[in-house]
Amino acid sequence: MSDSGAPARERATAQMVAQRAKVSRVAVSRAFNPHTSLKPEKRELILRIAQELNYTPDRAARALVSGRSHLVGVIVPDVCSPWESQEIDALTTALQNEGFATLLFKTQTDMSMDETLLTYMKGFNPDSVIAFVENIKPAILARVLGRAVPIYVHYPLEGQPETGVLAADKTLHDRLNILQRNGMEQAVALVQGYGAKRIAYLSGLPRSLASVAREQTLRRVMAERGLGEPQVFAGDFTYDTAYAATVDLFRVGQGADAIFAANDVGAFGVIDALRHEFGLRVPQDVKVVGFDDIEQSHWKSYSLTTVKIDLAERVRALVRLILRRLNDPDAPAFEETLQTRLVVRGTVG
Amino acid sequence: MSDSGAPARERATAQMVAQRAKVSRVAVSRAFNPHTSLKPEKRELILRIAQELNYTPDRAARALVSGRSHLVGVIVPDVCSPWESQEIDALTTALQNEGFATLLFKTQTDMSMDETLLTYMKGFNPDSVIAFVENIKPAILARVLGRAVPIYVHYPLEGQPETGVLAADKTLHDRLNILQRNGMEQAVALVQGYGAKRIAYLSGLPRSLASVAREQTLRRVMAERGLGEPQVFAGDFTYDTAYAATVDLFRVGQGADAIFAANDVGAFGVIDALRHEFGLRVPQDVKVVGFDDIEQSHWKSYSLTTVKIDLAERVRALVRLILRRLNDPDAPAFEETLQTRLVVRGTVG
Repeated sequence: MSDSGAPARERATAQMVAQRAKVSRVAVSRAFNPHTSLKPEKRELILRIAQELNYTPDRAARALVSGRSHLVGVIVPDVCSPWESQEIDALTTALQNEGFATLLFKTQTDMSMDETLLTYMKGFNPDSVIAFVENIKPAILARVLGRAVPIYVHYPLEGQPETGVLAADKTLHDRLNILQRNGMEQAVALVQGYGAKRIAYLSGLPRSLASVAREQTLRRVMAERGLGEPQVFAGDFTYDTAYAATVDLFRVGQGADAIFAANDVGAFGVIDALRHEFGLRVPQDVKVVGFDDIEQSHWKSYSLTTVKIDLAERVRALVRLILRRLNDPDAPAFEETLQTRLVVRGTVG
Repeated sequence: MSDSGAPARERATAQMVAQRAKVSRVAVSRAFNPHTSLKPEKRELILRIAQELNYTPDRAARALVSGRSHLVGVIVPDVCSPWESQEIDALTTALQNEGFATLLFKTQTDMSMDETLLTYMKGFNPDSVIAFVENIKPAILARVLGRAVPIYVHYPLEGQPETGVLAADKTLHDRLNILQRNGMEQAVALVQGYGAKRIAYLSGLPRSLASVAREQTLRRVMAERGLGEPQVFAGDFTYDTAYAATVDLFRVGQGADAIFAANDVGAFGVIDALRHEFGLRVPQDVKVVGFDDIEQSHWKSYSLTTVKIDLAERVRALVRLILRRLNDPDAPAFEETLQTRLVVRGTVG
């Protein structure tokens, strides 16, 4: 905007545009919100008149009046891991269609957020924030957000009472629940059906609740099916650590018939270590199952059998949570729930 | 922030915090800017007093006064392609360290930006925008940005007069120049040294100037080295299209001794098609060279020889351009320039 030198009171208002265009104030607002439905001729007329009057719905000005910034914060340790980047991509598209912009906040490398970063986030006054409890607790985030209610992605263990930080923290927050059991049970049954007995679990970062919940679910499903305990070996969601950990498992440890990885990228490291360090064949010698179903998992070098979280569904559920909360700021906690399912490709069979 | 109900004039000001803490106004500002240097005790004192006074440097309020939003827009067709996501990740970290947040704007799938999206961007009043000329021309972007000067990533052809949209558009913009020749010349020499004669180029999206510049550079380097013309076959930067195009090249067309891909992800598709559809060995039967050097390129299944753009250098250069421009809004165009270099792994040799 070139009117930065002019004081705010000299800006054209939406009302002025509405009057000139002979439309409602709401129509002007909709015209500036990409992809809301509005007759094309009407939108064009409004945008043309807005341009003539040099009117733009400046969000800085609007934010002061409405208290809304139209910014949605996403707290992530890593934008560039494939899962996160694919989620951010889909979320950005979906939010843009609703008139919101995505604001990225990166945690420290240990996944924590320090006080400075929180204050910094507060300064942008996001309308909503999507967070993980291992990065920041609801009580702390609520202090930063004030009126906005954070959304937590949560991995409940089915049939078990809730424990942990989220259970203890009674601060109002909305939740996206991912039920991991369905897909994992299908995966264990498939692996078992092909004769695997010694099953190992390659974990993610120890702080990640997603990884912990996956391990607990695997443990429970295996016990139910008479498969004993999984051997757990430590990863951190990266390819390189997965590769090195697999070398250790087969060179120093006892190896395994099947390996469940906490994420797909880890599974790629497992597969490459098995093939390139030991000349083992996947799936004939060792079966491998990932988690996520990222874009790369169908690449022919991996063709990974994996437990899928449907990204499109997940993003729709997150956007629904944001919109429901903005429509009803004082409602009790909202929840959305997703299931996982097994996608069968070439690494078990 | 919980003070959304209170009118703006009741907010505590930075001056009030500075007086109470007995520090300068600048120190208060620095305390809220993560990772600017400030003695820890001083920062703690300032943040504590700010909390007592319920002061926060609300950017909506500040933006109206200073004209600065502390938002940097990045216009991308795709957040989730590995190169873009790795760049956005590094850029977000670097900008956060300077007190800016990254705002993502997604173009239409054909890489264009429509009027609605531009108006939407204008509403956020970004301090700077990083763009590609194939997405939006400087003249159009300047109209949206007003005072802010956009940064364009540019691929000049060395030793040739500049042509194309950026040459014709005289609107003030800053530039990051990527000189592609160094790395590509090294790659062609290596491939030639191993005896390749029939060289093919897998393009990116036809609108992408990066891909066009890569093709032109390859063409010129091959001509200089007596290698004739590359056979060009059409990709779009994705794995799946690269895979299918390679199948066509070898099944319908004449094949090739070496394939240069416009990006690494495309090179992965080429490699997998060669191996899985034709049982060909890389590099013994066909040599493959990528472009970018993304994180995935060192994965053992690919171990890709590729022309590297140093991501860390690139992000530093972009941040320098942003800061130089904000320090000197009326200066003539700033430029930063990067070279490429060859990273040799296992797909040529």
